[in-house]
Amino acid sequence: MTRIAHLTESGLLTRIVPALTRPPAVEVGPGDDAAVVRLASPRVVVTTDTLTQDHDFLLRATTGARIGRKAAVQNLADIAAMGAHPVALVVSVSAPGSTEVAFLEDLSAGLAARAERDGASVVGGDLGAADALSVTVTALGQLREGQAPILRSGARAGDVLAVGSPSLGRSAAGLAWILAERDRETGARDLVAWHDAPDPDLSLGWTAARRADGTAIATAMLDISDGLVRDGRRLATASGVTIDLERDVLAHDVAQLADAGAALGADPWTWVLHGGEEHAMLATFPADEVPPGFRRIGTCGALADGAGAEVLLDGGRIEGAGFDHFA
Amino acid sequence: MTRIAHLTESGLLTRIVPALTRPPAVEVGPGDDAAVVRLASPRVVVTTDTLTQDHDFLLRATTGARIGRKAAVQNLADIAAMGAHPVALVVSVSAPGSTEVAFLEDLSAGLAARAERDGASVVGGDLGAADALSVTVTALGQLREGQAPILRSGARAGDVLAVGSPSLGRSAAGLAWILAERDRETGARDLVAWHDAPDPDLSLGWTAARRADGTAIATAMLDISDGLVRDGRRLATASGVTIDLERDVLAHDVAQLADAGAALGADPWTWVLHGGEEHAMLATFPADEVPPGFRRIGTCGALADGAGAEVLLDGGRIEGAGFDHFA
Repeated sequence: MTRIAHLTESGLLTRIVPALTRPPAVEVGPGDDAAVVRLASPRVVVTTDTLTQDHDFLLRATTGARIGRKAAVQNLADIAAMGAHPVALVVSVSAPGSTEVAFLEDLSAGLAARAERDGASVVGGDLGAADALSVTVTALGQLREGQAPILRSGARAGDVLAVGSPSLGRSAAGLAWILAERDRETGARDLVAWHDAPDPDLSLGWTAARRADGTAIATAMLDISDGLVRDGRRLATASGVTIDLERDVLAHDVAQLADAGAALGADPWTWVLHGGEEHAMLATFPADEVPPGFRRIGTCGALADGAGAEVLLDGGRIEGAGFDHFA
Repeated sequence: MTRIAHLTESGLLTRIVPALTRPPAVEVGPGDDAAVVRLASPRVVVTTDTLTQDHDFLLRATTGARIGRKAAVQNLADIAAMGAHPVALVVSVSAPGSTEVAFLEDLSAGLAARAERDGASVVGGDLGAADALSVTVTALGQLREGQAPILRSGARAGDVLAVGSPSLGRSAAGLAWILAERDRETGARDLVAWHDAPDPDLSLGWTAARRADGTAIATAMLDISDGLVRDGRRLATASGVTIDLERDVLAHDVAQLADAGAALGADPWTWVLHGGEEHAMLATFPADEVPPGFRRIGTCGALADGAGAEVLLDGGRIEGAGFDHFA
């Protein structure tokens, strides 16, 4: 069993980097001071996010490949949520010297595989020492010339709220199974796998949310990272609207988690309304233009004079809150 | 004293982000899923690097502002070393809930100030919880249309090796003072400040290393992050040359550290030859074209048949090695 303390940094990078492909857009790949990537236009879309051991994942309860896929997805989702196409990722891994090289190889392979599925390549990386494992990914995306990014702020009263996922709350339900530390049946294992590495269709962000000519259909978009209600409120606040979620529709999401809720003594509504780390696209559309792949779950209404943006359920207040790193 | 656990993540970001300026190149700044930045051409130069508490800095021995400046410099230097102009930074900070908000504000301000000096803006950030403080910066750079990046691999026998710094070894000498935990005179305080936040002239990478028409004068370039000998060997290996450093020239660098060496019982040659975290530009030029701001410190020679690339001092072998994260 080779641990990373046994290798030099450059020796380690050699073990991890060869897995990466080098498409034509990558003018300079890993190995120099920086990478050079060709884009569709002279604009770059950029986002960054970190996963830290014991805070964002439990090392003993997941795998290197799943950590890599999750780190990729949470950043690719932010690019997709701008209606932009991911093109490149760079990754900075900090790890204890006792970390197995095979573990990092799995992490790197998981990251690269998820990125490639969405058309992006890992073009650079950095490896450093730390007491706990952490993975920071920065994703770069491209927009065609003249194509406007899809912001959070464009929703209007009368728009429909829709989500690019057949089922919400799975990541939170999977986390509940992990924290319960109980034997799991098949359904539970699927939920845990989804929590460890959520697998939403991110391409909806740069395909379905736009027309064939590249103009946006979505009036506003973000990805669900901290919960439907919390992220919905962000969109509502940025746009100056209220959002009313539809109980009848979300009841289908809740029903799919009924077994897990019963087994764990939890209310699946909490998972559906407040569960984070889904990374599905959450967007608003003109009422008659919800595209395939998106599912209507609510509507946008006008703000009353002086009122703050709210997210309601069938017009009523919602209890509870989404995820906050420090709350 | 407000600690970050007292605020929500978005409340915290509001405290940290307002310090940031928003130049015209930043089409979408912090606050949406991702930032959008306009570049000089449809190519982006990208690099990422992490600083971790107790591994890359001693929290009790530095300040938030210095950590921010160091995190900026080590990434901006990688952009500069491609002969590219920095345009934007994103930063991911992981920190314990007990971290003081004022400390993070200082870190953010130091990072932004250093970036702005080189023409770059902080366009996005992420804040998460961790047991130890870490700061990951990703820097984006631009190249004018048709402008080739300056790689490590272009040095040729007969080229001159030159460094964009008046004095090497200061960062390592400063670290030696920190680790000695002794009272410091003025000179020592300057070295410690340089170690905490090295301040090389990075603009040499995108100005002096190129002609006015943008073509490269430098045949190869990188920045000194792990030591003159180790980084010199990387350049030599990528280019297929040997490098011979000039003892008479480097003796001036050594002389400037003589007092520190005497006070600490250390050999300043080790700091000059092997000291990392200088982040000065190290480049090769045709012999008659070393530009102002660069100082000749050696020459490139042809590889003997079957021999590996080496870095020598007046033709002789050099003992010791540079910094390795896991060695």
